[in-house]
Amino acid sequence: MGDIRFAIELKVRDYELDAQGVVNNAVYLHYLEHCRHEFLLSRGIDFNRYAREGIDLVVVRCELDYKAPLRGGDAFRVTLALERLSPLRFVFLQEIRRQGDDRLVLAARTIGTALNAKGRPFLPPEMERLLS
Amino acid sequence: MGDIRFAIELKVRDYELDAQGVVNNAVYLHYLEHCRHEFLLSRGIDFNRYAREGIDLVVVRCELDYKAPLRGGDAFRVTLALERLSPLRFVFLQEIRRQGDDRLVLAARTIGTALNAKGRPFLPPEMERLLS
Amino acid sequence: MGDIRFAIELKVRDYELDAQGVVNNAVYLHYLEHCRHEFLLSRGIDFNRYAREGIDLVVVRCELDYKAPLRGGDAFRVTLALERLSPLRFVFLQEIRRQGDDRLVLAARTIGTALNAKGRPFLPPEMERLLS
Amino acid sequence: MGDIRFAIELKVRDYELDAQGVVNNAVYLHYLEHCRHEFLLSRGIDFNRYAREGIDLVVVRCELDYKAPLRGGDAFRVTLALERLSPLRFVFLQEIRRQGDDRLVLAARTIGTALNAKGRPFLPPEMERLLS
Repeated sequence: MGDIRFAIELKVRDYELDAQGVVNNAVYLHYLEHCRHEFLLSRGIDFNRYAREGIDLVVVRCELDYKAPLRGGDAFRVTLALERLSPLRFVFLQEIRRQGDDRLVLAARTIGTALNAKGRPFLPPEMERLLS
Repeated sequence: MGDIRFAIELKVRDYELDAQGVVNNAVYLHYLEHCRHEFLLSRGIDFNRYAREGIDLVVVRCELDYKAPLRGGDAFRVTLALERLSPLRFVFLQEIRRQGDDRLVLAARTIGTALNAKGRPFLPPEMERLLS
Repeated sequence: MGDIRFAIELKVRDYELDAQGVVNNAVYLHYLEHCRHEFLLSRGIDFNRYAREGIDLVVVRCELDYKAPLRGGDAFRVTLALERLSPLRFVFLQEIRRQGDDRLVLAARTIGTALNAKGRPFLPPEMERLLS
Repeated sequence: MGDIRFAIELKVRDYELDAQGVVNNAVYLHYLEHCRHEFLLSRGIDFNRYAREGIDLVVVRCELDYKAPLRGGDAFRVTLALERLSPLRFVFLQEIRRQGDDRLVLAARTIGTALNAKGRPFLPPEMERLLS
């Protein structure tokens, strides 16, 4: 599959902050997911079309290391590398870094698979091609 | 249809607060929606089953009067009254009141209809019965 | 104050969709708020700095007309016009339009004011200048 | 510190579902956080009061194993066990189980610490007592 890398640039939105004045922990999962889905779309793989066809891309495990908080007004970059783990599993290695000083905000490792309409793990052909 | 009233009791969750230390404005729409869906479920109308069948209950207009903020730890009550507006439209009159002092937090008026699988307004039989 | 207009361009993120496959009603309030805060920032007014100083910009009323749904993959434009309503109140007139066909998705009217550290309505000097 | 256990019972709200018709991955972090904060409150430790005093309870690492999805209408139980990891770190072991069949939905391990107003790790006295 060669070396697959991808990145998006986003900016914190104020509603994503919590009472500590920093981005709430759960919101980083949104950032990570959005980066993965944009990457997949760039390869012709549409999470929502899959969902309508009964194919569910699913996360089976996620590890998150929170290194520094994002605050209101921060711009940041979400990066992604994709590797195959096993016949039916793949892993996204992702980082979030603040723009400006490039400070590491979060490092994440997300293991995924896909389920067919019967809920059985399988890889749709587009994912198989992407990972070959 | 007689007098239809319903209420649920909830508690603020800390992730719903924003940097001002109060519940973010958008979150009240979640509270109002959750109350409407629980009410409909109590009458045998399941928003998600409808969605799977291609029937979409939709909001066409919402008016919100923000009277006082909810803060971390606050418990509150969401109430609902339902009235028919026209052959294909209905309105939910809702209030959110803080437990303890019964202070009015939010008053809302939400006009809805339903769309069939072709996106045309119509009322499914269960809604028709509820509103008769 | 002359004619104040502002716009931002965003793209739907998949986590903003609900089980109907459309952007959840509450999420539009996030889009509208983000546009207002970006506008204010462009005029030197920082919602979060205000919050830390005990000044709260608050919404007192919001009227939303939902015209068409946004779906996964949609790009859209949020616009804003600002007018003074009274000595202590102002109104944001906002629209969300889908990119491509410019279809009107949502029209909103949001009335706001500011509260000082004692919770009393007032306009901070920067807001007063903006509205003069 | 003995054996610390705690649990809350919640119900899925429809706005928490995504286009796959299941609870979005990030929402589980909300459920886990809410359980931790309710537990802390039950021991006299208020996340928001801490935030106002400049003390931030923070997550430094989170591991999530997604075992089965929650769907619309599901009721579930979030449990928690707390252990000390080191002088300044503690770990919450949490599970989410569906009501009815007790099926394991998610297992999570969340490592936390606290930061003082200067951003330095420390344990506030109430946390120290809780963990002793």
